[in-house]
Amino acid sequence: LASLGVRVMGVPMDEQGMQVEEVEKLLAQLQRRGELARVKFIYCTSYYQNPTGLTLSLARRKRLLEIARKFSRKHRILILEDAAYRELRYDGKGLPSIKSFDAHNEYSVLTQTFSKPFAPGLKLGYTVMPQDLLTAVLRQKGNHDFGSANLCQWIALEAMKTGAYAKHVSRLCKHYRRKRDVMLTALQQYMPEGVQWTIPAGGLYVWLTLPAGIKTGPDGSLFEKCLENGVLYVPGEYAYGVDAPRNHLRLCFGQVPMSKIRGGVKRLAEAIRETR
Amino acid sequence: LASLGVRVMGVPMDEQGMQVEEVEKLLAQLQRRGELARVKFIYCTSYYQNPTGLTLSLARRKRLLEIARKFSRKHRILILEDAAYRELRYDGKGLPSIKSFDAHNEYSVLTQTFSKPFAPGLKLGYTVMPQDLLTAVLRQKGNHDFGSANLCQWIALEAMKTGAYAKHVSRLCKHYRRKRDVMLTALQQYMPEGVQWTIPAGGLYVWLTLPAGIKTGPDGSLFEKCLENGVLYVPGEYAYGVDAPRNHLRLCFGQVPMSKIRGGVKRLAEAIRETR
Repeated sequence: LASLGVRVMGVPMDEQGMQVEEVEKLLAQLQRRGELARVKFIYCTSYYQNPTGLTLSLARRKRLLEIARKFSRKHRILILEDAAYRELRYDGKGLPSIKSFDAHNEYSVLTQTFSKPFAPGLKLGYTVMPQDLLTAVLRQKGNHDFGSANLCQWIALEAMKTGAYAKHVSRLCKHYRRKRDVMLTALQQYMPEGVQWTIPAGGLYVWLTLPAGIKTGPDGSLFEKCLENGVLYVPGEYAYGVDAPRNHLRLCFGQVPMSKIRGGVKRLAEAIRETR
Repeated sequence: LASLGVRVMGVPMDEQGMQVEEVEKLLAQLQRRGELARVKFIYCTSYYQNPTGLTLSLARRKRLLEIARKFSRKHRILILEDAAYRELRYDGKGLPSIKSFDAHNEYSVLTQTFSKPFAPGLKLGYTVMPQDLLTAVLRQKGNHDFGSANLCQWIALEAMKTGAYAKHVSRLCKHYRRKRDVMLTALQQYMPEGVQWTIPAGGLYVWLTLPAGIKTGPDGSLFEKCLENGVLYVPGEYAYGVDAPRNHLRLCFGQVPMSKIRGGVKRLAEAIRETR
């Protein structure tokens, strides 16, 4: 977005996901300043967000759609619903998408992918979006890549037809659920007081909040200590558009082998202790 | 390019490919007008061009590089050498690329692909370019696609390692050479006087020039007649950036089965006769 010259504004999150009432306040503020027409879309990862692992609650899904509609009187404001992690669900029932409340297919663009639930190497995704945007999006995509690799498209199609896709997703979910549980148990066991983390019901990430004094950035001593001890995390400041706090970090239980999660968390906890 | 707001200027071609002395004149003209700094690159399909099938001669390759260098005193003008068809060679020796004359890797970007010589479904290509452009290009590509499908990259790698790639290219060349010859023979046999065409030494296309009065555009009677008779060509006007003449058309012998080429050319010739 920065490379396109886009101005990004953030809103806080809590256990229910994005605080949509903050979105409403922000839009009202922009309206008063006469800047509402500059708002192109509200970006929201609705399921097991990267980087927090948090999910937007049912009530907030409905409300966010209402907010987009309400502020679209003169100029449409779209919700870009990134549902990349939707199928990686480990607990609870699956929530309906924000899109499902957009009865006339007007205010939201739902995007999903085969990368997260099936195979990253395919580089395939799909979207459900308002009809009037389709031509522009297809042209833009055509200009970028002249269409996705059709070998990969055929592989995905066959996998869905034969049931291999559904089977693989369910196997992945079982596998990732165990890894998540190993990570959460290790966090519980090793983390010093004052460290908090999210409990993701799906996806690939756990989000840690350290005491305010501990900086997680790539130039800080915690990051360095972790690298020395063979632990890699994503500094939380990379996950903000603006005004990034410095005491967050993202853990991922996706790629790392099951057997290494516990030890990694232990070494991270030790590094945090030493950095205090 | 149009979608990026780019201004495109064209130069004529002849049997030796792009008339590079016209490029030189154009750049000199832009220099006099103080517009030279707006010139970003010279685009050239150096082998068996789409749509003409023509190849840039050896002397012109060297000369084009000299021209780019000469006008790059204050601000670099790059040659974008699109060599997509390079490996589909049916006659003669392969010419060295324009890039090969760019001794210090400064003024030209060579791009090639696996799509044309191997398999379009892989959607993979590669480039040889000045070092200082690499970061920007990789970032731009990353923003577009987050990297190519790595399944496809592994397939291409295996094919090259095992020799399957070289074997397939050589088989394709044999096959396409025969199809080209069938098309050229049929053109010789059926086309009425006043129709001219190129003799491509490689690639997939033959370019036809009809008498000036015959319009090849999608709204014209020739195009309509051809469609009715099951013949599809690309109207030549689609192949120009600006000031398109209306009496050209492109034939492709790539995808159509061998057995249908002769009959298609015959019906096209009949349609041209009826349109005169």
